Amino acid sequence: MQDFDIPVLGAPRLPNPIARRGDIRFIDDRERLLYDPHYRVPEDLPQGPVSGFEVAGPRERIFFDPERTRAAVVTCGGLCPGINAVIRALVLQLWFIYGCRDILGIRYGYHGLGRNRETPRALTPADVGDIHRQGGTILGSSRGTPPTAEIVDTLQELGIDMLFAIGGDGTMRGATAIAEEVSRRGLEIAVVGIPKTIDNDIPLVRRTFGFETAVSIATESINAAQVEAWGVENGIGIVKLMGRYSGYIAATATLSSGHANFCLIPEVPFSLEGPGGLYELVERRLHERGDAVIVIAEGAGQYYFETPERERDASGNPKLGDIGVLVRDRLKAWLRGRGINAPVKYIDPSYLIRAAPAISTDQLYCQRLARNAVHAAMCGKTAMLIGFWHGQMTHVPMEALRGRKRQVNPCGELWFNVLESTGQPQVIGDISYIDLEEE
Amino acid sequence: MQDFDIPVLGAPRLPNPIARRGDIRFIDDRERLLYDPHYRVPEDLPQGPVSGFEVAGPRERIFFDPERTRAAVVTCGGLCPGINAVIRALVLQLWFIYGCRDILGIRYGYHGLGRNRETPRALTPADVGDIHRQGGTILGSSRGTPPTAEIVDTLQELGIDMLFAIGGDGTMRGATAIAEEVSRRGLEIAVVGIPKTIDNDIPLVRRTFGFETAVSIATESINAAQVEAWGVENGIGIVKLMGRYSGYIAATATLSSGHANFCLIPEVPFSLEGPGGLYELVERRLHERGDAVIVIAEGAGQYYFETPERERDASGNPKLGDIGVLVRDRLKAWLRGRGINAPVKYIDPSYLIRAAPAISTDQLYCQRLARNAVHAAMCGKTAMLIGFWHGQMTHVPMEALRGRKRQVNPCGELWFNVLESTGQPQVIGDISYIDLEEE
Amino acid sequence: MQDFDIPVLGAPRLPNPIARRGDIRFIDDRERLLYDPHYRVPEDLPQGPVSGFEVAGPRERIFFDPERTRAAVVTCGGLCPGINAVIRALVLQLWFIYGCRDILGIRYGYHGLGRNRETPRALTPADVGDIHRQGGTILGSSRGTPPTAEIVDTLQELGIDMLFAIGGDGTMRGATAIAEEVSRRGLEIAVVGIPKTIDNDIPLVRRTFGFETAVSIATESINAAQVEAWGVENGIGIVKLMGRYSGYIAATATLSSGHANFCLIPEVPFSLEGPGGLYELVERRLHERGDAVIVIAEGAGQYYFETPERERDASGNPKLGDIGVLVRDRLKAWLRGRGINAPVKYIDPSYLIRAAPAISTDQLYCQRLARNAVHAAMCGKTAMLIGFWHGQMTHVPMEALRGRKRQVNPCGELWFNVLESTGQPQVIGDISYIDLEEE
Amino acid sequence: MQDFDIPVLGAPRLPNPIARRGDIRFIDDRERLLYDPHYRVPEDLPQGPVSGFEVAGPRERIFFDPERTRAAVVTCGGLCPGINAVIRALVLQLWFIYGCRDILGIRYGYHGLGRNRETPRALTPADVGDIHRQGGTILGSSRGTPPTAEIVDTLQELGIDMLFAIGGDGTMRGATAIAEEVSRRGLEIAVVGIPKTIDNDIPLVRRTFGFETAVSIATESINAAQVEAWGVENGIGIVKLMGRYSGYIAATATLSSGHANFCLIPEVPFSLEGPGGLYELVERRLHERGDAVIVIAEGAGQYYFETPERERDASGNPKLGDIGVLVRDRLKAWLRGRGINAPVKYIDPSYLIRAAPAISTDQLYCQRLARNAVHAAMCGKTAMLIGFWHGQMTHVPMEALRGRKRQVNPCGELWFNVLESTGQPQVIGDISYIDLEEE
Repeated sequence: MQDFDIPVLGAPRLPNPIARRGDIRFIDDRERLLYDPHYRVPEDLPQGPVSGFEVAGPRERIFFDPERTRAAVVTCGGLCPGINAVIRALVLQLWFIYGCRDILGIRYGYHGLGRNRETPRALTPADVGDIHRQGGTILGSSRGTPPTAEIVDTLQELGIDMLFAIGGDGTMRGATAIAEEVSRRGLEIAVVGIPKTIDNDIPLVRRTFGFETAVSIATESINAAQVEAWGVENGIGIVKLMGRYSGYIAATATLSSGHANFCLIPEVPFSLEGPGGLYELVERRLHERGDAVIVIAEGAGQYYFETPERERDASGNPKLGDIGVLVRDRLKAWLRGRGINAPVKYIDPSYLIRAAPAISTDQLYCQRLARNAVHAAMCGKTAMLIGFWHGQMTHVPMEALRGRKRQVNPCGELWFNVLESTGQPQVIGDISYIDLEEE
Repeated sequence: MQDFDIPVLGAPRLPNPIARRGDIRFIDDRERLLYDPHYRVPEDLPQGPVSGFEVAGPRERIFFDPERTRAAVVTCGGLCPGINAVIRALVLQLWFIYGCRDILGIRYGYHGLGRNRETPRALTPADVGDIHRQGGTILGSSRGTPPTAEIVDTLQELGIDMLFAIGGDGTMRGATAIAEEVSRRGLEIAVVGIPKTIDNDIPLVRRTFGFETAVSIATESINAAQVEAWGVENGIGIVKLMGRYSGYIAATATLSSGHANFCLIPEVPFSLEGPGGLYELVERRLHERGDAVIVIAEGAGQYYFETPERERDASGNPKLGDIGVLVRDRLKAWLRGRGINAPVKYIDPSYLIRAAPAISTDQLYCQRLARNAVHAAMCGKTAMLIGFWHGQMTHVPMEALRGRKRQVNPCGELWFNVLESTGQPQVIGDISYIDLEEE
Repeated sequence: MQDFDIPVLGAPRLPNPIARRGDIRFIDDRERLLYDPHYRVPEDLPQGPVSGFEVAGPRERIFFDPERTRAAVVTCGGLCPGINAVIRALVLQLWFIYGCRDILGIRYGYHGLGRNRETPRALTPADVGDIHRQGGTILGSSRGTPPTAEIVDTLQELGIDMLFAIGGDGTMRGATAIAEEVSRRGLEIAVVGIPKTIDNDIPLVRRTFGFETAVSIATESINAAQVEAWGVENGIGIVKLMGRYSGYIAATATLSSGHANFCLIPEVPFSLEGPGGLYELVERRLHERGDAVIVIAEGAGQYYFETPERERDASGNPKLGDIGVLVRDRLKAWLRGRGINAPVKYIDPSYLIRAAPAISTDQLYCQRLARNAVHAAMCGKTAMLIGFWHGQMTHVPMEALRGRKRQVNPCGELWFNVLESTGQPQVIGDISYIDLEEE
Repeated sequence: MQDFDIPVLGAPRLPNPIARRGDIRFIDDRERLLYDPHYRVPEDLPQGPVSGFEVAGPRERIFFDPERTRAAVVTCGGLCPGINAVIRALVLQLWFIYGCRDILGIRYGYHGLGRNRETPRALTPADVGDIHRQGGTILGSSRGTPPTAEIVDTLQELGIDMLFAIGGDGTMRGATAIAEEVSRRGLEIAVVGIPKTIDNDIPLVRRTFGFETAVSIATESINAAQVEAWGVENGIGIVKLMGRYSGYIAATATLSSGHANFCLIPEVPFSLEGPGGLYELVERRLHERGDAVIVIAEGAGQYYFETPERERDASGNPKLGDIGVLVRDRLKAWLRGRGINAPVKYIDPSYLIRAAPAISTDQLYCQRLARNAVHAAMCGKTAMLIGFWHGQMTHVPMEALRGRKRQVNPCGELWFNVLESTGQPQVIGDISYIDLEEE
């Protein structure tokens, strides 16, 4: 049980001002959502000690006095559809619902909390009027992070009481470190995360914002690849999609399009060469149908690259080999060697996806995340992020992410549906020699 | 427990042919998904006798021999984005995954199973190639139903072994009656429903297909209303949205747009007149901000219409009074009476929403519904529909819908967020005299 | 010839500052574009005295000193996609190209120049940064106009040197009156119009901005109507589109969709009843094909309404009878009388069209209009509007609009293509008794 | 004059069957459209011998008997939005308007008329029902061409009377050769071209189909680049767009977006290095504004590549160096060398543009091209293509394309507007040493 407990700054003693708004159903801290709601009959009940998440939502008592609270918002890492929608909802919720009138927008990620920072900008409802319909982030973002001590110094200097950190894995690790340093110094600053990865790979969170938008544009790219593949004899369309460690976008867009013949993701090893390998399967498809559409997640097949000492980007992520280009070039060469004239069209829509404004499904989700993040911070909850589990908004301790991964289950429904939809075999080529690198 | 048990035609004895496709995780009939996964600490477990849904998915043994099975698909009721995607996925799943090559498309709803029916059309993968990107239904639809006995006669005559019925409440009632008559005659015909209501109001099903698409277009309509309202002094934009008994589309699109000032839904009574009534609130908004955007679900405020003996349409639904037009006209008159010149722009996007092609989010969901419906029917399960609960596909006995409703909870998170987003008060006007009609 | 001469405030004597920008091709006032570039061989040349338009573009000498010039922008009449794009381009052109730093945005149409006006807002590049992607007008609009003398008083009081008036027929008439009063008072204020009618019916101007956007959304509506019509037996889809006196949107969207079976426009009379009338043709179509899609321009068939003394709106336009609703209701009744059960779906996308952001084709066109309007005003040209003729931007004297109309030619290529595309007969029903009202 | 005369197979003697459709305005072969409708006052008339195009449209007499005519459609070269719309309109026009019931779709470009051809497919209205809403070509395309004699052999073998060739420069050259061989053999086969280049660079044709769609998607890509550039400190977005010899897409999308800071096209040389070169200008922009968006047409700056013996693709086009990647990599290196950390985001939307379905503006234009191509072929006109000039559909002799180019005029309005919109200088860097290769 204790793994999902949420740290708090202190006992929340103030009445929640939203009580004025009428008949609110306040959430009790003891309310939980079962981690695994599956069971088996005839046994009547889930067995043994269960664990579950705190349910997100407004509490009857809060920790901070909103009128004396300074909140700050920071956006980190790569762009993702919906960041502005989250910023807007945070500001509106703080301002109109809790009456907090002192909100800072930190510029360009955690660096905006470092020593050489740009001055933060004040955020009011007027500043966020229509920003949810725009892609990107009005605050700017960056990768990497200054030293934690420097950040906490800044929080103190600026008199920030609650920090909303919108970002991915690295951002959450940074937020954890900040919360720990805050605690070490005995400060009362809440740090609440809003998970952002377009790849949808935050553990204990079923869905991250921007993902549905990403899938929608990725689907259009696959449809374009299919049009190109159909447009010539032996046409091949290749679409490279985001997904460093998890193939959710690739798998989901493959299903949504309904027109991909092969889908390659990081979780499922495959062989290009040899009997039953991709080359051979593509050749067979060309022979039978005269076209082929291949979807590749960027993190797939990384064992095709030599990586004695892997480079890392500013976020600390290892740089990936460009598997899309590798497959494109080698497949072309192989087919040429087989005497097959097969025009290959290569599509990499990454930045078009990242920079898109959020579709309505994500708009809604961004708001839910932001509203609940404000509820949580107001109660003095800290070192936590807002999650989504079994259709319910939850509180997840940042601590709990450690050591967990979220990846497509190669034996689960999603991947099985991809196999059905593409018609590709469960195993592509001889993969016995592949030594999957563990991160 | 027994309320969620699924009727079966007999014991499934045949091995599932999809086992050939590799390492399948088959679902056991005893696997269940808890109906309510919430609990409270310190108590460790959900208390008392629990109930839950059968988990959908492929079973190790099936009832029908796919190569000797004739399947039929029927689409009933109003249009909804995604119907063609469901049809396509049913056909592809039957054909490629189970090897069933005998699939009929019933024309124009249940009437296509009546005595005066049009000949059904055979459906092959070629027939459904790209239809998922088109709105509407390639089979045609209709309201109403011929006598159940007539339908079952037709099923016998045509030698149909499994019927997939895509439709709403009425369609599911029809399907239940068909399954009962089938059982009465001792036949072995599986009847499996795929719930379709754009209003998202099927009980025990968290989300119906087409809903996300509907919200996305409804959101654009609200955005247009806002542009119109801002474009003139005292501009008022009114958007009427679908939602006979439930305001999900109106409430969700209100949130997604972020630009509505009032949202009226069937579940929450309101008064137009009097102190704190809509007229007064709109006037105040005009005075303060110079514009107003109002979203109205079609089933809202029906108590404003005299309905001694209410007319019904062919589906048996009572005809609703046109609340959008009523509010528009009366509000105009009232403001005129107050000496306020306020141009009102009225938008009713209904058919644009119904006829739209499904967005990618719905594409995916349509496939999941269809694939699991085929799995279920193949096992001889009947009188059931495919549901969605806590993020998991389930089996729901049609029987269980009876007496249940699915409506926006006026004390729940969705409506609370609408109140926050619009800024409208929890109670609009004096509603004490409103006698909410019970259906 | 003289009908297309452009009034000027005086001789332009100042060098054009854009000369600094490099190798500019300046336009000479004597350059003209032939009004009618058609001729016949073997005759070598267009015959007789020709007439033509002044060619728009930058001139070598200008009248106003940009650094001492106060410009104003006013937007009048109904919304139309692209207004904000025009405003933005005017501001950027004035500011960056000519160096004029004093630009006023007049609020809510001509009323913003009346005695009871709202204070105008200053417009800088920062104010118009991204507005071209938004629908509507950031300045607000209105119908009607205060007395001309009052407007010119305001122009004097505010010290406005050039007025850009974005609007339709009525706005141009207003602008003409303003220019005349300006001249009467011996003032040096340039009045330049940018024609805006979503209906595309400004004479001597081949295309108005927003039209292509309008057609694109109207096309989607027709496609939706077709999906609805195909979705049921004997389904009928009716789409009412804008077009008070001219059927350009209806005709063009009919072609673009390729799925309408009947198109009714103001320029072509038709009969609903009787042999060969619309009812009969629709019945025949239902009999043969089982569906029908009808497109109706709002100004079509106005002779079906009694109009002894026609009401007028604030712009002075007579109020039209609602022909869409009339056709819908009477057609329904007629079919019912014939024992035909034909569900009718009615779509009126007007405000969704008006409030849409401009598509890229219109973006470009809005810029061309605005840039050339600034060039013209800077040279002291007045009482003119920017036109588009044979693919070239032109100057059109407002005077020349008088007495001209722009309508779909029932014997021209556009309408002939509509007849081909719909398959409708050239004459629908007996129209001999129709007495087309002349406006 | 004679340069625009159109070859004919013989005197058209048959009455045009469309006369039955009512009051048609037939075009007389002697009607012409002035090539250049500009003139100067006080001179009253265009001077000297003028030249002009035949006006497209239906003629009173036709050459072929539609009921005994076999027509064929072939699509060549790269994909382009609207090909299917052209195919559809050709089929519908032939079938419904002229009554020609024998239409062949040639598979995969001119190769479908070679010795090793795939069997052509018959085309009926049912085959083209909704294809105009799909990208690509249902017939397939290819580059290159079999020997002309082989093609004409095939035309004879298949008994084809009229060939509609949809394609670019190379396709028109091929069509010219076919027409010549046809004439040499004394055959009566009409060859009519429909110009297709997404680059909009066919001489004597103001606009090619698909161009507006291309611009619309290119605009979105620039907008995405801007979002990415704004999202980080010193963010740079680079968009590479199509345009081998002409920068129409790049220039037009730059204007439509309004957010590019640099636009590089083949027609305007520039220097990357040195004082006033691109690197320096970008650095200055980063210094002043913190972001930069660069649009590059694929054919720009080809002098940066060594091309002793340039490779050619199957269409005979020289392979271009990848200027987008070159600029990206060198700019990155240069900025790094200057100690500037500037994340560069690179977007290449080519295939997403080519494969897109046509927007409504192009839909309409595709129909006009196709309808008029059928009118022309029916009259026995040959070795010609359908053009668009001053807003009017014309006949252009293929012969007349020879030796002409269509490119952005660096001194014209379009490029001047690009300079205004981007703010870039007329000359980027020292270009005196650049030796522009002549093709």
